[in-house]
Amino acid sequence: VISFPSKLLEEAVNEFAKLPGIGRRTAMRMVLHLLKEKEEKSTALGKAIISVRQNIRYCDICHNISETEICSLCNDNSRDNSLICVVEDIRDVMAIESTNQYKGVYHVLNGIISPMDGIGPNELNIESLVKRISDNYVKEIIMALSTTIEGDTTIFYIYKRLKDFNISFSTIAKGVAIGDELEYTDEITLGRSIVNRIPYDYSILKI
Amino acid sequence: VISFPSKLLEEAVNEFAKLPGIGRRTAMRMVLHLLKEKEEKSTALGKAIISVRQNIRYCDICHNISETEICSLCNDNSRDNSLICVVEDIRDVMAIESTNQYKGVYHVLNGIISPMDGIGPNELNIESLVKRISDNYVKEIIMALSTTIEGDTTIFYIYKRLKDFNISFSTIAKGVAIGDELEYTDEITLGRSIVNRIPYDYSILKI
Repeated sequence: VISFPSKLLEEAVNEFAKLPGIGRRTAMRMVLHLLKEKEEKSTALGKAIISVRQNIRYCDICHNISETEICSLCNDNSRDNSLICVVEDIRDVMAIESTNQYKGVYHVLNGIISPMDGIGPNELNIESLVKRISDNYVKEIIMALSTTIEGDTTIFYIYKRLKDFNISFSTIAKGVAIGDELEYTDEITLGRSIVNRIPYDYSILKI
Repeated sequence: VISFPSKLLEEAVNEFAKLPGIGRRTAMRMVLHLLKEKEEKSTALGKAIISVRQNIRYCDICHNISETEICSLCNDNSRDNSLICVVEDIRDVMAIESTNQYKGVYHVLNGIISPMDGIGPNELNIESLVKRISDNYVKEIIMALSTTIEGDTTIFYIYKRLKDFNISFSTIAKGVAIGDELEYTDEITLGRSIVNRIPYDYSILKI
């Protein structure tokens, strides 16, 4: 039983401790840090937290985080709307965007099929993906999900839902990471990278 | 370079990432968590953060966190005002209070002498401790600081400042932790626990 010298302190610690991965000790450390800093810092953090939850919405088309009905990516005419990359959450959108290698659009599932966590297909943005494909011209769907059992299950489920459409259905390449040494690569990854070998293309060396 | 789909999201992540021990990935995870939860949760956290910083003050006597001029511990008549336990910060007050073994009052230094971090005696609440002792009847000072070089330095500095007062000056017992096995206790602790051995008292067994 911890006895707090102040109700306000206890409340702030309790609220922080509700965040994922934050225990009560860490929460206490954070609040004491804020108390030592200028008042403006706490005000800025508190307001940012309230504002982001109140004002953020999700894109009507791709479910990416947005401040408008249609997100900036879906609104961008320079992007290829016939190419849709399906991802688990918006962190994956940000990760792929930061590669500068993709010029299509996205579809954010907002999760992955995981019976253990009680997440089935109905909890995810799958119906809107099906509708999006039936209503628009879509050439290819790229499944960019985690290379886990849940990821594979989700890919297979979506594949079954989409297989009657006349579209290409691909998944991101799985293989040895760039810069990795073969002897430290796990055997499943290495095995798949041999089975899924690709023709040699020296043009990527940019000689 | 991470490209955020929303300014509000970026701001919230940046503010979270200013907290100690929170990197940008963790900050992002926290904000996405709040976005998935009900709006009330974010509002509660945001308001608690702003409120705690705006409304908390420090006790005029002991510098413990308080919502009033004098904290509840200093105001408590059942506590022994002639016994002052000197601690580094309010977490130590809370830790000692949770033992239910101490009925004196506290003095929070708000840090520890640490030349490496640029913290000298003037940055700490030491003058107010000296004044407190010269103005009031104080029988004993218990130094409850970390058993580190910085802790020992601070104890020695305060001892020198207080040695002309007619008070007892003690430090908390250092030794083998309750439940620890001797073979896993470090040799410095074990050595000190032998040098500072105490007469056997079977009454603590509560037979």
